[in-house]
Amino acid sequence: MPERRVTVREVAAATGVSIATVSRVLNQQGRVAPETRALVERAVEQLGLRAPTPRGGTPKPVDGAVFVRCPYVLTDYFGLIVSSIAETLDRHGRQVVLNAGEAAAQDPVLARLPAQRELAGAILILPPEPPEDLIHLTTRRFPLVVVDPRTTLPPHIPSVSAAHHSGARQLTAHLLSLGHTRIGVIAGPREWLAADARLSGHHAALADAGILPTPAHTRHTHPTTPDGYQAALDLLSLTPRPTALIAFNDKAAIGALQAAASLNLTVPTDLSIAGFDDLDLAQATTPPLTTVRQPLAEMGRLAATQLTRLLTRHPIQALHLELATELVVRASTAPVP
Amino acid sequence: MPERRVTVREVAAATGVSIATVSRVLNQQGRVAPETRALVERAVEQLGLRAPTPRGGTPKPVDGAVFVRCPYVLTDYFGLIVSSIAETLDRHGRQVVLNAGEAAAQDPVLARLPAQRELAGAILILPPEPPEDLIHLTTRRFPLVVVDPRTTLPPHIPSVSAAHHSGARQLTAHLLSLGHTRIGVIAGPREWLAADARLSGHHAALADAGILPTPAHTRHTHPTTPDGYQAALDLLSLTPRPTALIAFNDKAAIGALQAAASLNLTVPTDLSIAGFDDLDLAQATTPPLTTVRQPLAEMGRLAATQLTRLLTRHPIQALHLELATELVVRASTAPVP
Repeated sequence: MPERRVTVREVAAATGVSIATVSRVLNQQGRVAPETRALVERAVEQLGLRAPTPRGGTPKPVDGAVFVRCPYVLTDYFGLIVSSIAETLDRHGRQVVLNAGEAAAQDPVLARLPAQRELAGAILILPPEPPEDLIHLTTRRFPLVVVDPRTTLPPHIPSVSAAHHSGARQLTAHLLSLGHTRIGVIAGPREWLAADARLSGHHAALADAGILPTPAHTRHTHPTTPDGYQAALDLLSLTPRPTALIAFNDKAAIGALQAAASLNLTVPTDLSIAGFDDLDLAQATTPPLTTVRQPLAEMGRLAATQLTRLLTRHPIQALHLELATELVVRASTAPVP
Repeated sequence: MPERRVTVREVAAATGVSIATVSRVLNQQGRVAPETRALVERAVEQLGLRAPTPRGGTPKPVDGAVFVRCPYVLTDYFGLIVSSIAETLDRHGRQVVLNAGEAAAQDPVLARLPAQRELAGAILILPPEPPEDLIHLTTRRFPLVVVDPRTTLPPHIPSVSAAHHSGARQLTAHLLSLGHTRIGVIAGPREWLAADARLSGHHAALADAGILPTPAHTRHTHPTTPDGYQAALDLLSLTPRPTALIAFNDKAAIGALQAAASLNLTVPTDLSIAGFDDLDLAQATTPPLTTVRQPLAEMGRLAATQLTRLLTRHPIQALHLELATELVVRASTAPVP
């Protein structure tokens, strides 16, 4: 913690802004003039996120390896991100040290990273660790980039994510344009940033059409096919029945397709269903799924490029990159019956 | 090459078997008594595949990292293998250095491996390199395990693969039991070991039923959905039409489902279709696919365990492990119309 305070002081000294204001910016609290905020963020970027300046006798190798943590099974979601990170880092001549698989989630690796001399920095994919653990790394000047943060990050930690809000908003706008107004939502876990952002995108589109959201139309669930199936059965038992279901991801949407089939509802004539992600799965279903494409390979590429810039002391364009998502309309959505 | 000859000599000296016989065993040529073959293989295992004994001044660290090469995108096939390797090696306290993604295929990394001091050994997944490159590594006593070899390996290189032949044989036996005799085969690339083994399993099941294979019923193609679609259209234009199609993998089988739909054939009443692999995809289709499950996680786990045993100088049970595959019957196959 003493190091953390030093950083705030350093930023205040470098910018001429008061420590209180620097703290407000760092904690994302309001009432800071945009210019001041920009000034502070720029200084944080310059002071706090450069390649580690050796203090003791253990200089980090500038050409060291990059630790890539993805504590999930590498399937066609996480696997695409990791493949693209690995390819990009290889192009920059950097070795990738991989920490992956579900068992890795139990592995308290972050605290050990700064002591590993061969590592120059890290890319953390959807890290399950709380923001404090990440702050701890950055106060030790360990360069890192977070991909797809699960919860809100401290603003000085660089991240790459997808535009969940706007993707979900486009999807709901598409359903509204087809005449759907009773839209059931199979939302992700409440505590996930992505679940919150997608639900808010959905609500924004409803608001654009002058519709208030119906709380009974939303189910928070784990984004798997069996959970999607259960949530869809539940939503389809409402009276009046929703005419469309949007799921947190393609896997849950496949559960919704199965629920519709079990109730003898034909998709899309009786019921429209949409997913999110655009995995290969989305084209394997009958009908193929309307969904929102996440730029997974681009996210991996950009995360690797951002980290490489930090390691080679090049300025980065922005601390938080949000990549555009894209509505992909297929045959699972149609005009309201 | 001189080192290679030394190995043959060493094996001959250790076993009392002639150099010519050792060579015949190593090259998998016939006419060697089973006991002699077993003796030679055991000696090869003991002499040639132990952890590297340092010769010059660069001892390999016994606790060094493991290089994992998977020059493909980590989706729900390769990603599952790599996740399981990473988890297992982590449990053994070994760091994973990852080389993955399609760009990695162009990367001539193997020759550089022995010079990388931090690496203790390697696991190579479906390596695109010819066997000579792998032999070169083993003559330099660089410990490695190959997963899912694409072509026949020299017998002294440890490998882990799936029982392609028996899986395919079970699948065709299942179709024969449903009355199908005109079975179209969307086979993989001719040069792939797995494609050859699965086709031979298919032919073995036909032979069991007293049926000679019809060459016109087989199409060799790349195992993707679009290629599966084309091959299926082609096979379904034959007169008389096949009553069942088996595809090299689930992705190609999805192409076959799409081809059936485009010809207004209902699966499985008009046409049975089956895949191979049992990816998540296989349960997302309508109807869900009958397929053969590959033990991907087990393959990764065993490859990591085999390599760890080699690195810690424990004996390994067998050089070539072939894991059982399992027929999974779902709704895409039914009695012949």
